[in-house]
Amino acid sequence: MRISPPATAMIYSGPADPHRPLAVDSVDLRPGDALVEIELATVCGSDVHTVGGHRSTPTPTVLGHEQVGRVVALGDGAVRADGTALAIGDRVVWSATVSCGDCDRCTAGLTQKCRALRKFGHERVDDAWTLNGGFATHAHLPRGMAVVAVPDHIPADVLAPLACGTATAWAAVAAALDGREPRGLSLVVTGGGLIGLSAAAIASSLGARVTLADPDPARRDLATRFGASVVLDPTSQTAEPCDAAIEASGSRHAVAAAIDALDVGGVAALVGSVFPGDAVPLDPESIVRRLATVRGVHNYTPRHLVDAADWVAQHHDAFPFAELVGERFALAELDSAIALAAAGTHVRVAVSAG
Amino acid sequence: MRISPPATAMIYSGPADPHRPLAVDSVDLRPGDALVEIELATVCGSDVHTVGGHRSTPTPTVLGHEQVGRVVALGDGAVRADGTALAIGDRVVWSATVSCGDCDRCTAGLTQKCRALRKFGHERVDDAWTLNGGFATHAHLPRGMAVVAVPDHIPADVLAPLACGTATAWAAVAAALDGREPRGLSLVVTGGGLIGLSAAAIASSLGARVTLADPDPARRDLATRFGASVVLDPTSQTAEPCDAAIEASGSRHAVAAAIDALDVGGVAALVGSVFPGDAVPLDPESIVRRLATVRGVHNYTPRHLVDAADWVAQHHDAFPFAELVGERFALAELDSAIALAAAGTHVRVAVSAG
Repeated sequence: MRISPPATAMIYSGPADPHRPLAVDSVDLRPGDALVEIELATVCGSDVHTVGGHRSTPTPTVLGHEQVGRVVALGDGAVRADGTALAIGDRVVWSATVSCGDCDRCTAGLTQKCRALRKFGHERVDDAWTLNGGFATHAHLPRGMAVVAVPDHIPADVLAPLACGTATAWAAVAAALDGREPRGLSLVVTGGGLIGLSAAAIASSLGARVTLADPDPARRDLATRFGASVVLDPTSQTAEPCDAAIEASGSRHAVAAAIDALDVGGVAALVGSVFPGDAVPLDPESIVRRLATVRGVHNYTPRHLVDAADWVAQHHDAFPFAELVGERFALAELDSAIALAAAGTHVRVAVSAG
Repeated sequence: MRISPPATAMIYSGPADPHRPLAVDSVDLRPGDALVEIELATVCGSDVHTVGGHRSTPTPTVLGHEQVGRVVALGDGAVRADGTALAIGDRVVWSATVSCGDCDRCTAGLTQKCRALRKFGHERVDDAWTLNGGFATHAHLPRGMAVVAVPDHIPADVLAPLACGTATAWAAVAAALDGREPRGLSLVVTGGGLIGLSAAAIASSLGARVTLADPDPARRDLATRFGASVVLDPTSQTAEPCDAAIEASGSRHAVAAAIDALDVGGVAALVGSVFPGDAVPLDPESIVRRLATVRGVHNYTPRHLVDAADWVAQHHDAFPFAELVGERFALAELDSAIALAAAGTHVRVAVSAG
């Protein structure tokens, strides 16, 4: 089904080039696809890394993979992640990954590592999939992408980061809990960015006692409002032995500290180390004698996105999620938005096509 | 209840001293306790390390924690690990650990790390617990020790290592499977000692495809008879990417190789690193992107011993377990037995009180 939005996507060609708008006059929606008009997108740390030249991506591309929008057109049989039919007018968030559902990894539940994986906001623009990133007026969601309906009354600032930071935080909490009852469990979170703060909020709402470590006092102040009962400065303080840890900063020092902090039977979920860096010395005897577990978390599965969206719908107003978006820019000012995001003052900076 | 065996225990006082026999004329059996006449004990690698001066232990002590025996006296209400009553005449194996059952670690299922843990074969001899090691004619099993009945027809050579090597191998296989269906899973085992060979046998009987790596060609030959479909020399060969790994050698090189071998979603159980050594460089980005898990396994829980004993009863004759005990010594020749065990020619050397 060929439809004509008309749409505009911001094309990224490389670290030295400013974004330039591309008019997209027509989209070929195949069975199971959806076309969404984007309401608000937020700039993820990985977009900042890409534009800063610290992370490679195929070009030309449309960056952005955290956003909320509304369905404006549907291919035949398009469904939500819970299996129900998508409808025109649905307000939705969607996964950063598109999976085949059939390969060995998909059937093993590792859909984010599908053998035929495509990633929204990370692919070269081509004729079959042009609107493939969040920094655009519209997004083309192919079959195999998890799409989740969200309530109309929740602020877009809260919903936009769901499909990256919040769902990944949910996956990290699940990995760190490792099937254990969360109530009364002690959890150390290293890094007070979107994932760390969201993980603190999720875990505290489940009854865990959360300690958050970040060298930035502003982030520590924020953490106390996101459920952390203890905050500490990792440059001068060490966490008490804990049942679980989530390393969300990517700092090698924090990785070592999170593993060291584990008490007997403790589980550390590593989620922040998504860029190259020095190796961390691991003492295998200490891992063995503590019955400790270190687990990598990368992206998330459709189930995590569904659960994270449910959690946000129920708990978002108990935490200042809306404050995490510090400033909004028009889509045409995308380069300014990314530059401000890179400054690190705000947890998130938003881009609005409206 | 005070009973008079009479018994003899071989007392260990330090690396420089030969073992000397101690006559024990009387044992005070409290409710839940059992007295067992030992049929056969095997020398574990950790006994060799202790006698060699590479592992400290409180002295004087009775070493040995792998054995099989028969119940000859019972305190009131003594039970097996499955909750049924122990009976005089039961042929039994028993856990190396005594746990309180009430502390936070016991209630969390980490009984091997009980806050009031006592270890059979690792405690100072005292008046309340003299027969506390396997190198003796009798063993005093306190309440809180998991005791498992075993069939009469299974050779003692097969049963004696159950309470250390085999049960630990079972715990390692469970940790490496991590709840996954074993059939068709690829498993790499590093180290062809008792734990590695037992893990290969257990996992292959569950349907996993097992590769075993050991620098010793004799151990590799043995591994093919313990269920390994592929064997390799880690000094010159690298394993294919695998779903699961069990590191049973303690070699730091093998720890790194086991972690490196993990495919996406793979789980490595570290069990061999029970002595101090160099740190292993860990690349957190690789752990994150592979969704890899590294988990320490130390000793085991009563459930693992029950399951391992069930498995041995059903599967022992499919594998040459009995051949692992290379030679038997009389209890009085314990020092010679340990010296032969230290030579490494045999996977196990046995000591018989009979």
